[in-house]
Amino acid sequence: MAVGKLNAARSARALWRILRGRPRVPPSLKDNALLQVILNRRSMRQFKQDPIPEDVFQAILEAGRVAPSTVNLQTWSFAVFDAPGWRQKFGRPIPFRGARAVIVIADTGRDREVLDAFPYSPLIEYTIGVMNASLAAMNMNLAAEALGVSSVMLSETGRSGILDAKYLKECLGLPGHTVPLMTIVFGYPRGEYPPMPPKLPGEQVFFQGSYPAPDKDVMRDWLDQMVAGYKAGHLRSSFESQLQVYHNKIGQAERDLEEMVYYGGKK
Amino acid sequence: MAVGKLNAARSARALWRILRGRPRVPPSLKDNALLQVILNRRSMRQFKQDPIPEDVFQAILEAGRVAPSTVNLQTWSFAVFDAPGWRQKFGRPIPFRGARAVIVIADTGRDREVLDAFPYSPLIEYTIGVMNASLAAMNMNLAAEALGVSSVMLSETGRSGILDAKYLKECLGLPGHTVPLMTIVFGYPRGEYPPMPPKLPGEQVFFQGSYPAPDKDVMRDWLDQMVAGYKAGHLRSSFESQLQVYHNKIGQAERDLEEMVYYGGKK
Repeated sequence: MAVGKLNAARSARALWRILRGRPRVPPSLKDNALLQVILNRRSMRQFKQDPIPEDVFQAILEAGRVAPSTVNLQTWSFAVFDAPGWRQKFGRPIPFRGARAVIVIADTGRDREVLDAFPYSPLIEYTIGVMNASLAAMNMNLAAEALGVSSVMLSETGRSGILDAKYLKECLGLPGHTVPLMTIVFGYPRGEYPPMPPKLPGEQVFFQGSYPAPDKDVMRDWLDQMVAGYKAGHLRSSFESQLQVYHNKIGQAERDLEEMVYYGGKK
Repeated sequence: MAVGKLNAARSARALWRILRGRPRVPPSLKDNALLQVILNRRSMRQFKQDPIPEDVFQAILEAGRVAPSTVNLQTWSFAVFDAPGWRQKFGRPIPFRGARAVIVIADTGRDREVLDAFPYSPLIEYTIGVMNASLAAMNMNLAAEALGVSSVMLSETGRSGILDAKYLKECLGLPGHTVPLMTIVFGYPRGEYPPMPPKLPGEQVFFQGSYPAPDKDVMRDWLDQMVAGYKAGHLRSSFESQLQVYHNKIGQAERDLEEMVYYGGKK
């Protein structure tokens, strides 16, 4: 796990590039308010202690309920928390002390009540579950933004995502054919939105003819920005130590997930 | 694969329920334009032949590029097509004769150039790839809606999604650590948006305390609406025959996907 250390000049250059990073909006579309909300969305990790009114939160959840899904199967469930409820369940505050949290769960068991859409095909079934639940997650995230509520999707922080899926499944008492994927934490933003994290240039991710080979210089530049940006934002941590957390958990998480995906229906 | 036939009365009731289906928006928030766009989005399958201007399409793609992702790893790629390009590649028109199409690909190979974020953990790695690519897909879908462009995400139609992942991977010449997940077809809508497909009631998908057991009556009602709605929209097909297509393809698709997920890096 050597991600490399940056000298001062390289670090400064990387930071400068982060601060300059912006979504690229064609000038002709700069006045489209909706597009601006979508492109300027950020993962926010600092929240005011103001509560989210019930009608606002219900509208966010509704965006999850009406999200698109493969064959309209709606292979998802959502565990919904306010701050006291989360504390009662997990014995600690919602990560980043958000006002509300939703654990997004892939659920391919419900439709089995009336349909055998997935004859033995655990990986296809799981894939469709993950796709649909993620579509619903993004829909909720953007509905929140539309209502002035910020959020962050968590995969690990506070044992809240796929790396702790088994733990979450046990805590929530979930049945077979379910896998908790992520927690979305919601709240009103405290302070300005952070700079956009370093995004790969279009040439790396879009293609028309042949597949773009990974460009080592581009990826190195991305990594420099990740390291420098993380250092600027986290005084007592580093991107390397965050990756180390992933490394330490990923082996067990893999075994747990395999059990859920391949034996989930038999338990 | 007996999903059941509906008599006339049951079919009429199911249709009536579909036509009445609406997102539930609190009255206090009915004026929020972006929320309306998100909640009233539909999967559209009828497009005008008008082209999508380049700046509009670029803004849609930008929403994919700047979408959120686990540890900002951006484990995605996007194969981008106009109508002639799709025809040249696949020998047929874009499904539903859309103006543009994007094949959304989970790509967990690129970051390996500089990082070993995923020591052997194919299922975790794949899950994160699918989650992130799906978040980007939804972001593009909503950016399109914001710009008056409609879209539909395809998992099977026209060999365009996860059930034909191996075929797509070969056609596109994709390397290891990639899995094509879906095609998003974009175009300006022709005619009115269709009714909202039947969504499960909140009581089935949201929970606070214990997990909501699947309600067989609710699921049966959902299935009735799926059958009746499909019949109303497709004169020469049925929901049952569509499911049969899934059944016929899913065994091979499972084996292909397994090979991609577990041996993708070794090829």
